[in-house]
Amino acid sequence: MDLKKLIREIPDFPQPGILFRDITTLLANPEGLKYVLNTLTRQCEALRPDYVVGIESRGFMFGMPLAYTLGIGFAPVRKPGKLPAAVHCAEYELEYGTDRLEVHRDAFPAGSRIVIVDDLIATGGTAAATANLIEKTGCTVAGFAFVVELTDLGGRQKLPDAPIVTLVQY
Amino acid sequence: MDLKKLIREIPDFPQPGILFRDITTLLANPEGLKYVLNTLTRQCEALRPDYVVGIESRGFMFGMPLAYTLGIGFAPVRKPGKLPAAVHCAEYELEYGTDRLEVHRDAFPAGSRIVIVDDLIATGGTAAATANLIEKTGCTVAGFAFVVELTDLGGRQKLPDAPIVTLVQY
Repeated sequence: MDLKKLIREIPDFPQPGILFRDITTLLANPEGLKYVLNTLTRQCEALRPDYVVGIESRGFMFGMPLAYTLGIGFAPVRKPGKLPAAVHCAEYELEYGTDRLEVHRDAFPAGSRIVIVDDLIATGGTAAATANLIEKTGCTVAGFAFVVELTDLGGRQKLPDAPIVTLVQY
Repeated sequence: MDLKKLIREIPDFPQPGILFRDITTLLANPEGLKYVLNTLTRQCEALRPDYVVGIESRGFMFGMPLAYTLGIGFAPVRKPGKLPAAVHCAEYELEYGTDRLEVHRDAFPAGSRIVIVDDLIATGGTAAATANLIEKTGCTVAGFAFVVELTDLGGRQKLPDAPIVTLVQY
């Protein structure tokens, strides 16, 4: 399936000069949605994960159905202050300043294999910070799965050594 | 399955006096996650929806897998400024002031039947605002689906006349 036909391009969002890849048109298409989730499932099965982690908030959209189809558990990685129990924190750099992500300290048993899921990899900052969080819980990053990869931004070079699944490259 | 055994209670979050119902312990449990999604699927099938709408951000976690299992499309309802194309807006009241939710104007064809999904119904403000958004797109609310209902807050009285599915009541 040619997923690029289902992904809409919106110029100058969120700021002038940025061409935004809008996946909402893909999500609205039942065949596209089914194809993406079935393909991610097949490719992530090979990573033998124990848990799926989804990065707030579009990572929740793909991470949860993937946990369901793989028959394993799910944990959210969230922006600061959203998770109610004790957390590990990791910082990542923005264009100006830094931001933080959090995961529950007891999200998974130490030694678990985790697949990290998001809709898109751009500079790789949030995915690398999430990998850092997984290590703080004493777990292993089994791999990464993204629907869209913006290859010019070199995000995969920022990630630790683990398999990276992406379905569409720009 | 007794879902209450899988939902953790965290006192004084996000503020003193609030007992927070933490569903992350349910999501981490593969059997609990499968049971919730299979039950929501069975109950939502009866509503004959054309699309699932998930409310940012925990509604994304349940809405997307439900769209997948029902074999239909998904659309997100998001906080202001997150959706890249033209939107409809709806306001809802907070304890102090108001907030807004948005949906893409072209999220679904007019006349579609929509099921609105979130993790929890409390006062019903965001779900009622979402129903208002659906009406602005010329569509029909086929029903609502929530994992958790806080019955004392009377949220269901705020919703328009449509079936309401909830799996756990406190």
